[in-house]
Amino acid sequence: MLGDVIELSVVVRDLDQAIETFTRQYSLKVHHRGESKEFGFVNAILPTGIGHIELLQPTDPTKAVGRFLEKRGEGIHHVGYRVESVVEALEKLRAAGVRLIDETPRRGSRGTTIAFVHPRDMGGVLVELVQLG
Amino acid sequence: MLGDVIELSVVVRDLDQAIETFTRQYSLKVHHRGESKEFGFVNAILPTGIGHIELLQPTDPTKAVGRFLEKRGEGIHHVGYRVESVVEALEKLRAAGVRLIDETPRRGSRGTTIAFVHPRDMGGVLVELVQLG
Repeated sequence: MLGDVIELSVVVRDLDQAIETFTRQYSLKVHHRGESKEFGFVNAILPTGIGHIELLQPTDPTKAVGRFLEKRGEGIHHVGYRVESVVEALEKLRAAGVRLIDETPRRGSRGTTIAFVHPRDMGGVLVELVQLG
Repeated sequence: MLGDVIELSVVVRDLDQAIETFTRQYSLKVHHRGESKEFGFVNAILPTGIGHIELLQPTDPTKAVGRFLEKRGEGIHHVGYRVESVVEALEKLRAAGVRLIDETPRRGSRGTTIAFVHPRDMGGVLVELVQLG
């Protein structure tokens, strides 16, 4: 069901500083910058192979990304796995008793369809299912 | 420099239990099981797309994986990125002032050549550089 890892999302305190570090030290380039007022973050996308690193800086300490940084510090926020169909993946996971964060697919960035799966059943890893196109 | 994510390594308390969960809930299959007495863990490899999930259970609480579990609980231990050449990647990282764990490449499992980069300069993410073949 889970395909390629296409996103590694990393929470950072300072997006500009992190971009400077990642581009200089790892020879990565910023492909896109964005903001979500709804979820309280600004982000940058840096392609790596077939996928990308997402750098994520909270803009609202009361929302999920802000609470993550406060509680756990900088580090991996979630891992995005490519799936053929988010609808089918959610059906299978639900049938297997996996705890879901999104019961139904929702629109992701850049034309994707996504859903988050609770970290409890994934060894503490927050997983994003990503359907391209 | 960093290519595809080909390994997501997850520390778990109980490898057999984690294998049962991951194979049943995510329809994954175990491709390989192994052990490292040197580094104090047993592991299992479950392919996902072009890469895999590595489940990692410590067998020695005094070594790195055991200390990780004790300190941080279950969760992502490291992320493996494919690189064309570990030697060249280490040279570039060293020139950029990145703190390295392995100053020179070493032999990984399944015929790979690897080196670990310190999480300090990667937003708290422990990165493994992996050269295939």
